[in-house]
Amino acid sequence: MVTRFKPNKYKPLKINELKKFIISKRNLKKLFKNTSNLEVKEVGDGNLNLVFFIENKHNSICLKQPLPYLRVLKDWPLTLKRSYYEYEYFNTHKKYVKNHFPKIYDYDEVLRSITMEKLSPHIIMRHGLIKGIKYNNFAESISTYLAKTLFYTSDLYLTAASKKNLISKFISNTELCKITEDLIFTDPYAVNKNNRWTKPYLNKMKKKIEKDEKLKIIISHLKLKFMKNTDALLHGDLHTGSIMVTTKDTKVIDPEFAFYGPMGFDTGALIANLLMSFFSQTGHEKKFGERKKYKKWLLEIIKTIWIKFEKKFLKLWETENYGDAYPKVLFKKNSKKMILEKKIYMQNLFEETISYAGAKIIRRIYGFAHNIDFEWIENTKVRANCEYKASSLAIEMLKNTNSFKSINDLIKAAKINENMKVKL
Amino acid sequence: MVTRFKPNKYKPLKINELKKFIISKRNLKKLFKNTSNLEVKEVGDGNLNLVFFIENKHNSICLKQPLPYLRVLKDWPLTLKRSYYEYEYFNTHKKYVKNHFPKIYDYDEVLRSITMEKLSPHIIMRHGLIKGIKYNNFAESISTYLAKTLFYTSDLYLTAASKKNLISKFISNTELCKITEDLIFTDPYAVNKNNRWTKPYLNKMKKKIEKDEKLKIIISHLKLKFMKNTDALLHGDLHTGSIMVTTKDTKVIDPEFAFYGPMGFDTGALIANLLMSFFSQTGHEKKFGERKKYKKWLLEIIKTIWIKFEKKFLKLWETENYGDAYPKVLFKKNSKKMILEKKIYMQNLFEETISYAGAKIIRRIYGFAHNIDFEWIENTKVRANCEYKASSLAIEMLKNTNSFKSINDLIKAAKINENMKVKL
Repeated sequence: MVTRFKPNKYKPLKINELKKFIISKRNLKKLFKNTSNLEVKEVGDGNLNLVFFIENKHNSICLKQPLPYLRVLKDWPLTLKRSYYEYEYFNTHKKYVKNHFPKIYDYDEVLRSITMEKLSPHIIMRHGLIKGIKYNNFAESISTYLAKTLFYTSDLYLTAASKKNLISKFISNTELCKITEDLIFTDPYAVNKNNRWTKPYLNKMKKKIEKDEKLKIIISHLKLKFMKNTDALLHGDLHTGSIMVTTKDTKVIDPEFAFYGPMGFDTGALIANLLMSFFSQTGHEKKFGERKKYKKWLLEIIKTIWIKFEKKFLKLWETENYGDAYPKVLFKKNSKKMILEKKIYMQNLFEETISYAGAKIIRRIYGFAHNIDFEWIENTKVRANCEYKASSLAIEMLKNTNSFKSINDLIKAAKINENMKVKL
Repeated sequence: MVTRFKPNKYKPLKINELKKFIISKRNLKKLFKNTSNLEVKEVGDGNLNLVFFIENKHNSICLKQPLPYLRVLKDWPLTLKRSYYEYEYFNTHKKYVKNHFPKIYDYDEVLRSITMEKLSPHIIMRHGLIKGIKYNNFAESISTYLAKTLFYTSDLYLTAASKKNLISKFISNTELCKITEDLIFTDPYAVNKNNRWTKPYLNKMKKKIEKDEKLKIIISHLKLKFMKNTDALLHGDLHTGSIMVTTKDTKVIDPEFAFYGPMGFDTGALIANLLMSFFSQTGHEKKFGERKKYKKWLLEIIKTIWIKFEKKFLKLWETENYGDAYPKVLFKKNSKKMILEKKIYMQNLFEETISYAGAKIIRRIYGFAHNIDFEWIENTKVRANCEYKASSLAIEMLKNTNSFKSINDLIKAAKINENMKVKL
């Protein structure tokens, strides 16, 4: 006999309830030939969610349930509705990029849980990068992912009315946007008890950031853009910890920060995290110079991602320009002025990407939440050295954005910074 | 005995039902000492709405009910929900500028009617301008109106969450936004059966506009901004036909186009309509030169409006900067960099105003809906002459926006265009 399992209000699931939960849902139950031998594990290492694996020899699935608070900081309450935005993001984009998402099996409106395919043998990309694994299909797949998710939800593809209809689905995701507004665009530039950095080595740099009025104007400007530009439906947290990979496959996960915002925020997040991986590599060397080739590979994929992204985005614009922006009725096919306008558009998007990437680097080195790329470097002086190089570049990206005319300029600057002599 | 009047679905009100409607609503009935001698008149001269005056010797009120189609074009269906946005706009802004609105007495969710104060002795400002009446309090009041409505609904005053909450109230007003997107930003630049212009005199200019690729890129860029920038809650149709005046008082009406958009769209609409009044004056002269002083006055109020608006907006920013943008925690009071940033912000808003004003002028001379400022000039050659001057300036405003560094540059350019020799 199956015990009925139908909670009438939200509660965090306990490990011994998972089996009942699966059996109570026809669409989940049918994934397993028989449910008598299901094994359940709790695996969540995040701060925000419970994560369970449920498996037998026929199938393996993954259940993610939001917690009402940030695990590391119990006094930080968080809306449970965020899993709804995650689910809706998958739903909206699956039409074009579902091969880059896990399969979604169930969304439970009461428990706020999302049940999906357990990705295997995928690992969190950040872990792979720390190990020095090359992902040679990654640039191809993530550039497609970015081009499609951003283009298909923009005014270049949608009518104004259908875009606004989409915006309204995500517009109440204000709590998670607020986390970004505070942790990325405000706190790291102020004195705030949540900030951390590698002390004492980076004390001086932190002080410099707090006192740099120009930098604070720039970061505030980026914040304003984040709050008011509805370019496209963004993932909102597209770092290498939100991507699972094998050497052949790329899956994007955890889009609970989804909202309509400036495109450069997603592209910038990705590039920032690859740059941080680059600057952290020396700290993971067991033998001097052993990551030299890997570092070169990292810069190459950054370059390839941008080049492929730009090409794919422009191709979509050329072939599927059904949106209300730049209406077809006004322009001949191959209008020279329109070709020039597209170049300017992509150039602006590139500059926006550089700025937001800079902001993402600063927050991971001087703000609340850090990356294991740097954190796992045990020798704090070595770590600080890596972080110093990364954050010097980040400040350049923020303050002299338009000196980066192309992705090559970014690659060049990263190399120069990597080779700089740092005295801490 | 009072007949019960409670329609259960929308229908256009008939003149003989108005009395029953008033009596059926306690909040309306109480406005009149007795309701036996109510007089009802239908006065709507618009295309979109029924308008009735209901009065006796104790009071006079005005009822506005949307029609489900554009009156002049019965095949153009229009959402009835637009009166809801009008009502919500009044509601949102009344906290700060209610002295510049009529008093709102009732919104009927079934009939979609708004009942309000009948403004008296106010007249539609456009009519006053055609007659050559000076409104010496206008610059003071409309600059306050603009500064307050735009500032108080922006990220400079609101938290991101409360702003998004407001956005969501208006985000479904897509049908009326679409009218703007088509009639202002698209159709006048294309061959479209809805376009009109003063033929044959302006034929050449119309062709030139259709062929000007640079101009079409610029107007498309403005359209994109209109669709994606959520700066502030705009009136959306702030021309001199949406303003009622006496020489002492200013009331803004008809905000059914309300939506969250770029601030320069409201400021630009107003300035465009005052400029069009300026260029139309010669056409209304009965004696050569009799409007010379009035023209001077018109340019002066345009200048005064901008100067006062800028000053008031900056004052609000200084004293009530409670918004999530440019967070207080990052900046010292009187930070020099912040003062500079505010200057840049206002300069950008000025340029945006110039561009949108240019767009508003073009649509009234080459698009579907024209202004009586020009239309009432009976001699079509004289009219075309006025329109030519106005639209030459408009094209400059669109194509060389940044040559207008200050409001003085606009005034200067208007004078030069007014004195140009036109051969049609």
